[in-house]
Amino acid sequence: MEDITYWYALAAVLLFFKMLAIAVYQGFHRIGKMTFKTPEDAAFVGREAAKEELPQVQRGARAWSNDVENIPIFLALGVAYVWVEAAPGLAGWLFMTFTGARYMHTACYLAALQPWRTVAYAIGVACMLAMCVLILAVIL
Amino acid sequence: MEDITYWYALAAVLLFFKMLAIAVYQGFHRIGKMTFKTPEDAAFVGREAAKEELPQVQRGARAWSNDVENIPIFLALGVAYVWVEAAPGLAGWLFMTFTGARYMHTACYLAALQPWRTVAYAIGVACMLAMCVLILAVIL
Amino acid sequence: MEDITYWYALAAVLLFFKMLAIAVYQGFHRIGKMTFKTPEDAAFVGREAAKEELPQVQRGARAWSNDVENIPIFLALGVAYVWVEAAPGLAGWLFMTFTGARYMHTACYLAALQPWRTVAYAIGVACMLAMCVLILAVIL
Repeated sequence: MEDITYWYALAAVLLFFKMLAIAVYQGFHRIGKMTFKTPEDAAFVGREAAKEELPQVQRGARAWSNDVENIPIFLALGVAYVWVEAAPGLAGWLFMTFTGARYMHTACYLAALQPWRTVAYAIGVACMLAMCVLILAVIL
Repeated sequence: MEDITYWYALAAVLLFFKMLAIAVYQGFHRIGKMTFKTPEDAAFVGREAAKEELPQVQRGARAWSNDVENIPIFLALGVAYVWVEAAPGLAGWLFMTFTGARYMHTACYLAALQPWRTVAYAIGVACMLAMCVLILAVIL
Repeated sequence: MEDITYWYALAAVLLFFKMLAIAVYQGFHRIGKMTFKTPEDAAFVGREAAKEELPQVQRGARAWSNDVENIPIFLALGVAYVWVEAAPGLAGWLFMTFTGARYMHTACYLAALQPWRTVAYAIGVACMLAMCVLILAVIL
């Protein structure tokens, strides 16, 4: 790793793969059980539209919903962190801990594991809080 | 404030705190009323899963849903704005007006205040439109 | 176009307009049929709150939901791509193909066109996979 932008790039790539994994998980269940809620999707395989998404698809959707509430703002804080040159030595630790926590969060959501899902969520938020403090220490 | 990247960093930090505030608001109501829709969450406190989220949690979810439709693209436009060096003197005004409008939007959503919620939404969109015009003026 | 940051800026602007188009589409139907699910919105025009959103609004919401699952991570990968200076000659092609694919995805979703919606989705994901490979080739 050369510098802080490399850690950012690695986090973005790993988080993309994590989100893609949910899409694959949902697609696997939708196709495996030939169950589609969107009418044109069901029609394409000659089925009636399902009234509800499969439980696994719903669970994936909730995991993804939490992702989109957390990951984009982390990535923006990461850009700010790089630009204001906040604590370069901590960047790798913070970015990778956040990324690991989000992998853990998705795994716990799909496996219905509590309190570990909430622990993973809290670790992610703690990383972002630390980034905010380090950023504010530079710009204020 | 030294330069335009500092305004970006400040906007990212303030928008993170705003989103976090919704999470705290939702958690406060879920825990205060011991009402959880996700089965493993309810089981963890020895309750049955609720059929529906609490009204306050649903309202928070709608506010957050509007956030994720608006804030990430604003943050990306902000990066573009900085990179192409579009009107540096306006950056602070645009970034802070957008941020303030999103605070107002969330407050109005949680308090069910119309037409102020729509006004706040429109101010945010107007800031992004202005950013688009200023960016396009440089790159085209 | 001078350089790779200009392609990024153009993609961000075009994707903003695409998302705004869904908001306009939803608002057009909500206002045209005076149908609002949120109580204070309905009350503002002297109506009862609708039990469900209009079909067109629901369809727009699903298109938008897919956008927020894909566009922010693309934009972060774009930042990473620029920072690590991955294959500058391909940036314009990748960014514009992704953007075009997302326009096609929304159009197909609103028009209920399959398998074209899935094709558009897959093209977007393929662009992001290519960006990941090119980024990892630099940083690893």
